[in-house]
Amino acid sequence: MAGMVFFSVSMSIDGFIAPESPEELMGQQWMELQHWVFPTRFMRESLKLGGGGEEGLDNEIARTTFERTGASVMGKRMFDAGEHAWPDEAPFHTPVFVMTHERRDPWVRLGGTTFYFVDDGIRSALDRAREAAGDRDVRISGGGATIVEYLNAGLVDEFSIALSPVLFGSGIRLFENVDAGRIALQQVRSEASARATHLTYAVRQR
Amino acid sequence: MAGMVFFSVSMSIDGFIAPESPEELMGQQWMELQHWVFPTRFMRESLKLGGGGEEGLDNEIARTTFERTGASVMGKRMFDAGEHAWPDEAPFHTPVFVMTHERRDPWVRLGGTTFYFVDDGIRSALDRAREAAGDRDVRISGGGATIVEYLNAGLVDEFSIALSPVLFGSGIRLFENVDAGRIALQQVRSEASARATHLTYAVRQR
Repeated sequence: MAGMVFFSVSMSIDGFIAPESPEELMGQQWMELQHWVFPTRFMRESLKLGGGGEEGLDNEIARTTFERTGASVMGKRMFDAGEHAWPDEAPFHTPVFVMTHERRDPWVRLGGTTFYFVDDGIRSALDRAREAAGDRDVRISGGGATIVEYLNAGLVDEFSIALSPVLFGSGIRLFENVDAGRIALQQVRSEASARATHLTYAVRQR
Repeated sequence: MAGMVFFSVSMSIDGFIAPESPEELMGQQWMELQHWVFPTRFMRESLKLGGGGEEGLDNEIARTTFERTGASVMGKRMFDAGEHAWPDEAPFHTPVFVMTHERRDPWVRLGGTTFYFVDDGIRSALDRAREAAGDRDVRISGGGATIVEYLNAGLVDEFSIALSPVLFGSGIRLFENVDAGRIALQQVRSEASARATHLTYAVRQR
């Protein structure tokens, strides 16, 4: 069975997933946005911080999101922001297809992450990611504009939001320019930890 | 003990609480936004549609939101939109303080709703509502701009959002112009029905 196409993000109560500029990525509100994931056992393992860390819903969500993902698709801006920030062992551990307008050879990182650069559109990037993912799912990693491109094209099956108790006031909105009239949603899961509410919606075309 | 100051709204996943214009109030997405409340027993009783209706979480939320409210505060635009739309027995059944720039005598409706018109600012309107509410809570009814005025002034203790599985794409945003840097939130309740996720946050000043 072919996998699903999904995205999974942390969102503020007022709908933002990132600050306006990468320089603000260590600000107070950004930390609060991601606060549910930092203490988890999964995150400590991923960052090689040693043992320990919290079990429970937040940990389960972080782990299953990672484990279901067989390949990722990413916009160029997200790649550019991460290219110099990710460690040599980039946190994906799968093929990642980066949509770009330049030709570039695959970039192999430690730990199983290889970035492939795709210059012929979102469907092509997705086709390649599906093939690479096999039975597992394809994650549209971001950023917001890339997620909305896939949503508007009817190519997303479901998505998950970790809704964190923080207001951003400005930044990058998850659903900016979404074609709302064509997208119907069904709430398929909603569970809360002490730190966030984890929501999952199935996407249908109207 | 004095009551709390709160607001309670239905919000789309992308952060909207109403369409851009009152003429769109019967549109498909608006109906989906409010879909959790229509089938409840409480709503059927309120609209005098006879017996029946659903019990359960949605009904409990609708009923307790009504019962905790001893008085409401409302912006002029929300009042203007409702003045000719509410039935003679307006749905508040308490004093409602409308912020306005005109002087107008109280407007008494059937069933216990009286609209008082306050022309000397948001603190004055709230003081009068607190006094009228007694031990019960004061609800900032809306619209969005009025809610944000009270939030930014540090006058809201907590708020509840019924997060409905719908995207609006445009309309009136709940948190437009919120002073995000001064407001810290704590998730105090998060429960889902089949139709919506009911979230409650406590508000603290940073």
